[in-house]
Amino acid sequence: MAKESGIVFIGRKPAMSYVMAIITSLSASNAKEITLKARGRAITTAVDTAEITRNRFIKDLKVSKISIGTEEMPPREGENRARMVSTMEITLTKK
Amino acid sequence: MAKESGIVFIGRKPAMSYVMAIITSLSASNAKEITLKARGRAITTAVDTAEITRNRFIKDLKVSKISIGTEEMPPREGENRARMVSTMEITLTKK
Repeated sequence: MAKESGIVFIGRKPAMSYVMAIITSLSASNAKEITLKARGRAITTAVDTAEITRNRFIKDLKVSKISIGTEEMPPREGENRARMVSTMEITLTKK
Repeated sequence: MAKESGIVFIGRKPAMSYVMAIITSLSASNAKEITLKARGRAITTAVDTAEITRNRFIKDLKVSKISIGTEEMPPREGENRARMVSTMEITLTKK
């Protein structure tokens, strides 16, 4: 968590791994805010992570911002068209 | 679209089916607003649907509201615990 402090990139792991990362990050630093970033299928995991964290673990955490967007990804091998992938950012803030 | 006008429930179909539903709904009525509702895995499809609609088809459509939540679902057959499922709502508004 050296540079990208306050940002958690959501990938293919189960939501609970990211919940733990958020709890650790928020309790280690004095940060009051953390942003989850996800692309494609991981968007569902990002929502699960945010919901589990604030419902079960850190009850004074609020969803302060949600945004969605689109990113162009380089074409896969053997394809020649760029792919468009949906993205999502959820910011959680401690009250 | 009789009663639930202005709401599109996102399920397991490809995003493009819901994009078409939104375009039809917005052009048939004088509605300036439409809300996409999704649960669980369909959340990713909801984001894809919103992004495709406003990037490719209705350029003056803005994301005016996004909210996430949790719903309790009845237990599956043979299980006895309720399942928690993440939900998402995206509201699109015509400028």
